[in-house]
Amino acid sequence: MKVSRRSHVPPFAVMEILAAANARREAGFDVLSLCAGEPSTGASDVVRSRAAELLRTADLGYTEAMGVPALRAEIAAHYDRWYGARVDPDRIAVTTGSSGGFVLAFLAAFDVGDRVALARPGYPAYKNILAALGCEVVELDCGPETRYQPTVPQLTEAYYEGGLDGLIVASPANPTGTMIAPAELEAVATWCGEHDVRLISDEIYHGIAYGEDVQQATAAMYTEAGAVVVNSFSKYWAMTGWRLGWLVLPEELVAPVGALAGNVALSPPALAQHAGIAAFSPEGYAAAADNVARYATSRAALLDRVPELGWRPVAPADGAFYLYGNVSEYCARIGGDSVEYCARLLAEADVAITPGTDFDGVRGRDWVRLSFAAAPDVVARAVDRIVAWQQTL
Amino acid sequence: MKVSRRSHVPPFAVMEILAAANARREAGFDVLSLCAGEPSTGASDVVRSRAAELLRTADLGYTEAMGVPALRAEIAAHYDRWYGARVDPDRIAVTTGSSGGFVLAFLAAFDVGDRVALARPGYPAYKNILAALGCEVVELDCGPETRYQPTVPQLTEAYYEGGLDGLIVASPANPTGTMIAPAELEAVATWCGEHDVRLISDEIYHGIAYGEDVQQATAAMYTEAGAVVVNSFSKYWAMTGWRLGWLVLPEELVAPVGALAGNVALSPPALAQHAGIAAFSPEGYAAAADNVARYATSRAALLDRVPELGWRPVAPADGAFYLYGNVSEYCARIGGDSVEYCARLLAEADVAITPGTDFDGVRGRDWVRLSFAAAPDVVARAVDRIVAWQQTL
Repeated sequence: MKVSRRSHVPPFAVMEILAAANARREAGFDVLSLCAGEPSTGASDVVRSRAAELLRTADLGYTEAMGVPALRAEIAAHYDRWYGARVDPDRIAVTTGSSGGFVLAFLAAFDVGDRVALARPGYPAYKNILAALGCEVVELDCGPETRYQPTVPQLTEAYYEGGLDGLIVASPANPTGTMIAPAELEAVATWCGEHDVRLISDEIYHGIAYGEDVQQATAAMYTEAGAVVVNSFSKYWAMTGWRLGWLVLPEELVAPVGALAGNVALSPPALAQHAGIAAFSPEGYAAAADNVARYATSRAALLDRVPELGWRPVAPADGAFYLYGNVSEYCARIGGDSVEYCARLLAEADVAITPGTDFDGVRGRDWVRLSFAAAPDVVARAVDRIVAWQQTL
Repeated sequence: MKVSRRSHVPPFAVMEILAAANARREAGFDVLSLCAGEPSTGASDVVRSRAAELLRTADLGYTEAMGVPALRAEIAAHYDRWYGARVDPDRIAVTTGSSGGFVLAFLAAFDVGDRVALARPGYPAYKNILAALGCEVVELDCGPETRYQPTVPQLTEAYYEGGLDGLIVASPANPTGTMIAPAELEAVATWCGEHDVRLISDEIYHGIAYGEDVQQATAAMYTEAGAVVVNSFSKYWAMTGWRLGWLVLPEELVAPVGALAGNVALSPPALAQHAGIAAFSPEGYAAAADNVARYATSRAALLDRVPELGWRPVAPADGAFYLYGNVSEYCARIGGDSVEYCARLLAEADVAITPGTDFDGVRGRDWVRLSFAAAPDVVARAVDRIVAWQQTL
């Protein structure tokens, strides 16, 4: 019987790496896994103990489709605390991870046939969700000269070529880790507002940044220009499997997202919502800051060894926990692409990293993404192995 | 800025009832709420204590997109245990509630423009999700003569009218509580298989049934004819807020659903998945059976009083925990429809039930749905109040 055309989603190369890594681990090999975009620590103690308490006392039934009011209020307070931005809790929708947030935001903002732009390289689920929902993806070829971030001239070009209904910006970005400068985000947001292009700002790596001036711009400041912010408890608060995220919505999308959420998701997970409130406690923030300090240690050690690794260029790792590097020199030596580089690195040195092909269908064959969210000693040992293995090529 | 056309989801009348009920409750009134499609008990002790243990010991990161293997195996064993049906665990996808399951099943099975049939009256989210995903909804007018369930002649008619790509069957159904006879389900499934029409069988109320021969048919037996089964931990296992459900898939949809799930949802909630395994323990089944026994007590008392209530007809409450009744006689007395009937019942007698308009855009103005998932004494007191209030009209 028929399978839908829209379900023909391109497979991720990393899934084969993961399967091979698991197989080697089960066969007794000491595999170092730096391929997952996931903190290794898990939720903080304060969130876990709050959850344990709720398991004894709370009813854990369906919640409001837009999330429990107390959590929406905490998220609003977070914007005041971190960005000095006043956000009305009514404009916040709690979602089932940022994944659930993207689905709701795309459904509310875009119709079948709408054109939505995004940076290449980028997180592949944007493209795949948009395509599943019948939208047309417009890839913007982004390179080192703009920190792999889209620019107003690129948008203008796409706009006059075939019209444009939306733009996704991610900062810090996956896979590159690069950040868009506040002035540039403002310029992009203003341009989008003036051209009726809905800006979707993926801010799930906010809080994980290493620059001297860490103050990050947030599109929450631009929701009056129609922007939608997507955020998550998965990365900064290390709550990946809890499936909890949120949207900050412009006024006109509040009711549509509420109605869609009630039908598409009913409500986000109740326990995660109630316990997630504790993520905004001093202990919750402190645990998250400890994680970021650990990533910073790994990152500094890693960047010191980039010359030794011989990946060039590498994208500036402004934030998140990724190093995105060009391995074309080693690909040439093995006569293959980054998929083969990663497969052999795993098979011969027991280090799992992700081929760039998952993030970039044009140039990804020359690139790899290494996640340094693992413990610093794991990252250090992995680099030792990569360097030694590359010398054998 | 533009809001998508597909986000114009019709609002649910029950939301206004719920808001009014909450307002009255906060004002100190003793409101009896029989409008939610939700067990009042919550998850069993065995699931809760397993979850508490996992909070101390498990990592709770992302899981496999299709769900953790141990849970998929337990679900497969459940089919053997309950139905004597052999289901390969590879054909089971764990989902974020049945809501997440419907989104994935519809995306994998149907393209933009595909025509999908369903019974009217029915669960409104089917229609609203399908419309959001760009599908065309074909409503089948189902009445008491077929227990409000679709029939092969209706399907044949829809098929020759404009083509047909899918059919949703729910048994026990919401809002009617009616069940489709096993022979009829087999006939429908066979017809669908022969006509390349994808059958989606909503079985979330399985296990909650009151007939002498409770043996329920499951479309899992028909997956070779292309059927997809949707199920959930929300109703039988009373785990609504945990957001956990599953799909049983025909072979050709396994890889598409896996790829879509990785992009659209990443993974179902980790804690719910790991703890959900305990739902299939003897204690888990026993707690669920206790709930069903409680619904049966409420149901028997309620059906005894239908003549007194004067709702006629009522749909045969074969399963689930709903009584769907025609209140046109009382609507005539108040000179309004079921929305007004429900609003006045709440305002004047503090009982909250749901207007039929949420489930049936044609005849729903004459119908109401009463949920008897609440404690038996609450249901009994609510009936007292409804009877007394109706006498004042």
